[in-house]
Amino acid sequence: MRSDNQILVPGAELERRVLRALLDVGASAPSAEAAVRALMHASRVGVDSHGVRLVEHYCRMLGGGRLNKVPELTVRRTAVASAMVNGDDGLGHYAAYHAVELGMEIAREAGVAAIGIEHSSHLGAAGAYAAAGAEQGFITFATTNTDAMVALFDGAERFHGTNPLAFAAPVPGSRPWLLDMATSSIPMNRVLLHRSLNAPLPEGVAADAQGAATIDPGAAEMLLPLGGENYGYKGAGLAGVATLFSALLTGTTLDPDFIPMYGTENIHEPRNMGHFVLVIDPEKFVGGAMFGQAIMGYLASLRGAAVRPGGGSVMAPGDREWAEADRRDAQGIPIDPDTARFLVLS
Amino acid sequence: MRSDNQILVPGAELERRVLRALLDVGASAPSAEAAVRALMHASRVGVDSHGVRLVEHYCRMLGGGRLNKVPELTVRRTAVASAMVNGDDGLGHYAAYHAVELGMEIAREAGVAAIGIEHSSHLGAAGAYAAAGAEQGFITFATTNTDAMVALFDGAERFHGTNPLAFAAPVPGSRPWLLDMATSSIPMNRVLLHRSLNAPLPEGVAADAQGAATIDPGAAEMLLPLGGENYGYKGAGLAGVATLFSALLTGTTLDPDFIPMYGTENIHEPRNMGHFVLVIDPEKFVGGAMFGQAIMGYLASLRGAAVRPGGGSVMAPGDREWAEADRRDAQGIPIDPDTARFLVLS
Repeated sequence: MRSDNQILVPGAELERRVLRALLDVGASAPSAEAAVRALMHASRVGVDSHGVRLVEHYCRMLGGGRLNKVPELTVRRTAVASAMVNGDDGLGHYAAYHAVELGMEIAREAGVAAIGIEHSSHLGAAGAYAAAGAEQGFITFATTNTDAMVALFDGAERFHGTNPLAFAAPVPGSRPWLLDMATSSIPMNRVLLHRSLNAPLPEGVAADAQGAATIDPGAAEMLLPLGGENYGYKGAGLAGVATLFSALLTGTTLDPDFIPMYGTENIHEPRNMGHFVLVIDPEKFVGGAMFGQAIMGYLASLRGAAVRPGGGSVMAPGDREWAEADRRDAQGIPIDPDTARFLVLS
Repeated sequence: MRSDNQILVPGAELERRVLRALLDVGASAPSAEAAVRALMHASRVGVDSHGVRLVEHYCRMLGGGRLNKVPELTVRRTAVASAMVNGDDGLGHYAAYHAVELGMEIAREAGVAAIGIEHSSHLGAAGAYAAAGAEQGFITFATTNTDAMVALFDGAERFHGTNPLAFAAPVPGSRPWLLDMATSSIPMNRVLLHRSLNAPLPEGVAADAQGAATIDPGAAEMLLPLGGENYGYKGAGLAGVATLFSALLTGTTLDPDFIPMYGTENIHEPRNMGHFVLVIDPEKFVGGAMFGQAIMGYLASLRGAAVRPGGGSVMAPGDREWAEADRRDAQGIPIDPDTARFLVLS
């Protein structure tokens, strides 16, 4: 989605500017640093919708009072392998990274850790947290529910969010295996892009106000779950998994009940968003060394699999993203005009 | 897939016959009872491909030596919340139910339990185990990898199995929320059915020998992952999640490396299949009572969601299956002629 009016900014400079912006509106250093880390993860791997462009929104929410500028995280250890982290309504990235840290500490002893997060807020890309655990040697799962945007199977209203499921696993000497997927086929901003380009949508990814599938981006009022018109009950079920772990298990807000992230006057009230993180230590299963060998063998055979004609290459989850990170580390990160203006980059 | 040459058999009678068949070939009572329980789950909820029709195959494998008739399960407690269950190459259902039992015992204390299973075999429907945990009040996830049958995204060979992900959650006073989904859009036996009917397949669910999507059931050589031609990287990633937890984490066999389930002379050698079970106690998060209220509210709003024109009704995962179980409990379970003959029902 590169366009001519984007500018390329070196990652290190971008990181400084984003941190500065958050600190300038009064965000505490640890919460701002966590947000920067998550935003830079997304911007580096090419998930620009969840990257640094969000900083302007976060600053507005910190100013409005929706987000607590100086959150004090609290942890309730509910059992030997479980905990609830209370994000104190600060930047969600802070609570989520803390949950991963805590999860690793617990899993190292207990084999597994399950951490619920309450009183949190938007956490950016769920994959940032899965990757953070995997980079330290742990299989990590992170999920959140989000603002209702996706129809149920056979439904005609926005019910679930695009509810991501993010899994990551450590790979010796390499970046993690990383699957960070929305449970809809496309994100809502893809619809907006097609609308602005007046270009038809792919089939089976969006529906009109009556819930009928449409390829007309102007008529699209909601997304369809992964699997589309025939198999969307699977995507809808997976979106429910995100809600189950993130909201039902933690006692936080359901997808349709969120104060809207955008487009509301209410930017002073916290949204009480929930997330969930699961951390597993391979050491307590087949063992770290054996696991490392197994995943390397698996990935080698996956990447070596026969390719369909015209198919390019077969990639593992994360391969495309880490390659994009290498490109952006070398060439800079593309920044849209609004964000560039906000960060005083243009 | 009801057809005229099926007969309807009362569940209780069917259960006795299936148990008898397994005991007659020498399966130990506990392993046979576990298999019957899992097969009856699938047959009751309408997943006939994973139901009692498998008993003839299992009997053959018990006779051939692939399956240990008298398995002694062993448990290695690797940490306070993790364990490995060794199935001793017996019927996989036995090891898998045992893992759920153990997981519940651990999660009741630790909040969560992660159980790897090794030296197991085909476990039937993964949903049987997720449901078993949920019926006792636990959020339960069960997965397995299976014989390679599904192409990778852009791939041209069978790489992953149809690798199910099964999640279930307790619902007060009701059957569990239950999502038991293959990570392909359809199972391979759907292709075989379309082939025998000479009816075209839906688009984006299968591919020919070169990996090109096809609707010709005669040309279909492999399945495509959920998400089809455009978004199949998501389904392929989810299939990888099943392999990650079931095989890589447990040190068992990768999908393409299994001795084939069917169609091989080798029925004497164990397949060393792995599975994975995760059990979570809601009591250690928001609390059991609050969780119960939350999931009931969620399900009420889901089932009450607006329906698209021609859409029938909006259902939660499991609604269709439990309704089918009610029907079959009342009317009997449809049994195909081969299985009826094997069980001396016709």
